[in-house]
Amino acid sequence: MSHQNLLLPFIAATKTQMEFDYDGPSMKTSVPGPRSQELTKQLGDIQNVGAVNFFCNYEESRGNYLVDVDGNRMLDLYTQISSIPIGYNHPALLKLMTNPHNLSTFVNRPALGILPPENFPDKISESLLSVAPSGMSRVQTMACGSCSNENAFKSMFIWYRNKERGQTAPSDQDLSTCMVNQVCESCPDLSILSFMGSFHGRTMGCLATTHSKVIHKLDIPSFDWPIAPFPRLQYPLEEFTRENAQEESRCLEEVEDLIVKWRQKGKPVAGIVVEPIQAEGGDNHASPDFFRSLRNIARKHGSAFHVDEVQTGGGTTGKFWAHEHWGMDDPADIVSFSKKLLTGGYFQRDELQPDKPYRIFNTWMGDPSKNLFLAEVLNVIHRENLLEEVTRSGKALLKGLYELQGQYPNILSRARGQGTFCAVDICDDETRNSIMLKARDKGVILGGCGDRSIRFRPALVFKEYHVHIFLNIFSDVLAQLK
Amino acid sequence: MSHQNLLLPFIAATKTQMEFDYDGPSMKTSVPGPRSQELTKQLGDIQNVGAVNFFCNYEESRGNYLVDVDGNRMLDLYTQISSIPIGYNHPALLKLMTNPHNLSTFVNRPALGILPPENFPDKISESLLSVAPSGMSRVQTMACGSCSNENAFKSMFIWYRNKERGQTAPSDQDLSTCMVNQVCESCPDLSILSFMGSFHGRTMGCLATTHSKVIHKLDIPSFDWPIAPFPRLQYPLEEFTRENAQEESRCLEEVEDLIVKWRQKGKPVAGIVVEPIQAEGGDNHASPDFFRSLRNIARKHGSAFHVDEVQTGGGTTGKFWAHEHWGMDDPADIVSFSKKLLTGGYFQRDELQPDKPYRIFNTWMGDPSKNLFLAEVLNVIHRENLLEEVTRSGKALLKGLYELQGQYPNILSRARGQGTFCAVDICDDETRNSIMLKARDKGVILGGCGDRSIRFRPALVFKEYHVHIFLNIFSDVLAQLK
Repeated sequence: MSHQNLLLPFIAATKTQMEFDYDGPSMKTSVPGPRSQELTKQLGDIQNVGAVNFFCNYEESRGNYLVDVDGNRMLDLYTQISSIPIGYNHPALLKLMTNPHNLSTFVNRPALGILPPENFPDKISESLLSVAPSGMSRVQTMACGSCSNENAFKSMFIWYRNKERGQTAPSDQDLSTCMVNQVCESCPDLSILSFMGSFHGRTMGCLATTHSKVIHKLDIPSFDWPIAPFPRLQYPLEEFTRENAQEESRCLEEVEDLIVKWRQKGKPVAGIVVEPIQAEGGDNHASPDFFRSLRNIARKHGSAFHVDEVQTGGGTTGKFWAHEHWGMDDPADIVSFSKKLLTGGYFQRDELQPDKPYRIFNTWMGDPSKNLFLAEVLNVIHRENLLEEVTRSGKALLKGLYELQGQYPNILSRARGQGTFCAVDICDDETRNSIMLKARDKGVILGGCGDRSIRFRPALVFKEYHVHIFLNIFSDVLAQLK
Repeated sequence: MSHQNLLLPFIAATKTQMEFDYDGPSMKTSVPGPRSQELTKQLGDIQNVGAVNFFCNYEESRGNYLVDVDGNRMLDLYTQISSIPIGYNHPALLKLMTNPHNLSTFVNRPALGILPPENFPDKISESLLSVAPSGMSRVQTMACGSCSNENAFKSMFIWYRNKERGQTAPSDQDLSTCMVNQVCESCPDLSILSFMGSFHGRTMGCLATTHSKVIHKLDIPSFDWPIAPFPRLQYPLEEFTRENAQEESRCLEEVEDLIVKWRQKGKPVAGIVVEPIQAEGGDNHASPDFFRSLRNIARKHGSAFHVDEVQTGGGTTGKFWAHEHWGMDDPADIVSFSKKLLTGGYFQRDELQPDKPYRIFNTWMGDPSKNLFLAEVLNVIHRENLLEEVTRSGKALLKGLYELQGQYPNILSRARGQGTFCAVDICDDETRNSIMLKARDKGVILGGCGDRSIRFRPALVFKEYHVHIFLNIFSDVLAQLK
């Protein structure tokens, strides 16, 4: 086949995709339909398929609509666990694939840490650095969220120990004992303080700071690290300011107690890691005051402050980073990201960058082809004013949830959110699952979190009219439950 | 710009690339040249650049030749830390990018564990399952080598504890203590046995089994897990069979002792992890007998056996997997991979697959766009008989190293290898580095490993005539050192 022929259908396809948009859900079968069930059975011979919802036709999916292999078209408020930034098959991303100058970036994945491509400094400047958190001009890409957090933790450990050592080089004993996993007098163990309900990933370092669900943790060896309570606030936040402030004080006191206690135990807290909104753990919010105080506690005790924005980052709260809502010039020492940013990685303050090469290192150190997509996603966010859209859609979504909560007080409670990063609690786990399945059969994809919450994680292109399509269907589902 | 215009240069570019191949190194400057130095300075404001060798022009790189930003064209025997399977810009991979049916796979990265694309079971069958190790029909993809090993370890822990529990469900105490990182009577700690000199990655679970260089380990908390000596053999292996067999017996005895000791300590060995050839740690080989015995020891003590083929897998030893050289029907319980396979992941025996969904899980669970490339790489390996080529080139390479070692006994020693996965020791670290820099300035890229070894890691398209180009230059460098 000549290249010319090969490319003809491609040109046609691109044109069609750019002209096309769906006007609502369209359901042909209940979900999973027969074709999904058949494929699930097939995949079951290769992998555990207990978590598979259904199989997708990504070619036919567009914008906010995910199409499955049985021809069902669903409004997607979960977006691949919150990892699709600007919807499916965005024309800007398809166009990027047609640029011949980008081909080599996909075909030749470099070992970025030793042999970066010529355009790497420019690409990273126009993409990641253009959204660097306040006070941070350094960024390290990684392949995924867990790798990002693992390496962020390592940066904090290295920083902490360098700070302790001062100008002294590591002792010979340090060097020999670390090779056999042992601590010694001059190199005590270190720890990371995390919060109950948090989720920071599932590799073993991350998992030691993850405390959201038993199924993640059972049977896996872990570290004896301090775990503080995360505020359990009452919603709407503005109606319970006094109670919530008390709850936050209680948690902050506990944080300080734990830092002291672990130092006495000989396992000083090198860093504190926290999500701006606990996501997987049930969409638990805390006030800007809480985070400002936490940041101060970290500074006071000489611990690094790591804000994990893997799920909250990328614009979904109405600001590019959720921590921007805290209004701080110096919000963190490390901010990690992944999901909607398409590449994993973390920003860091200058002093957190390890002093020597190869201390933070792996073969790929990220993937430049993901940086290409991210640069284009950032262009689209800017060009289409998507942060404003998110704020507008989020207000409509939360307003709708409040109204439904008023209408169905026995089913819904604790509606909460920032931007479109919203959630609502359901009376019990069984009802939640039933609501989610019924909504799906009516063409709306939702995700759960915590014990009995539904989390809303639409893409940044989720407009006000999509909110109303969702609310209508959600309302129908609730009416039928009653 | 119309799409038609956009695509014209692309068509031209593809044609040129397919017709083009370089006939040898070509050097314009010493390396890093001025442009590389300038870019390194620029990137230094963003990241630690201490490990950066030089900047690359990946567009102009072809086959076995890496071109840098100063126009230097070098024969690449390190291939991005052994991660480029069939050379730079292979026409088959470029062609894959022009197929419009593949576009959506790049643009819409799914959460594979819950919403796989329609072609996923087929793609994974025609790619990964077509090279499944003996006895394994299950495979789990992951984003990188470290994630693969982390999750392989977790699978072994879960398998081990399920085996211990039998039909009994986890106790309430198990469930509550694991959430706060604690062990309890019914859920003792578990461990993974690894070997001195091994490298299994740098995330915190992997790092606890990595013991190759201090710079990886210093300051990072770890687990108290058993570490056995890896055989330190004499080369050529066939000349020291008796001595080497003794050394291997000594190490195997130590393995059994450690398993017993750690069980008594209350941290039973859930799994043993080993590389078929220790790579990062200095290209340390062991005999098929050693691995067969190790596999039996694991079975005898109820530990899982995990073979880490992240660096050895993908054809470079002359067989697709290095463990095939052991001649076993049941070589392992888990085989992990990454690098040349372009996607991370691991194969496992049926019983190692976790019983429940969401125990091994993350957002992306790999990347279908990498599976696309892998399927094509496997086609090329088959079509171009690359495993035979590797065997042929490897023999020529090792023969050349033996000859040079005879010629320069004060500089070179311990030449060793399987396929093109070869290495040679240099008299000292300083001389090694000097040799590597001199070779680079003459147009050959080499990598180091261990204390004073050079490792050869060319792509699978490294032919006999490339071996001779390399040997001529290497010989020149050695002659100038003498």
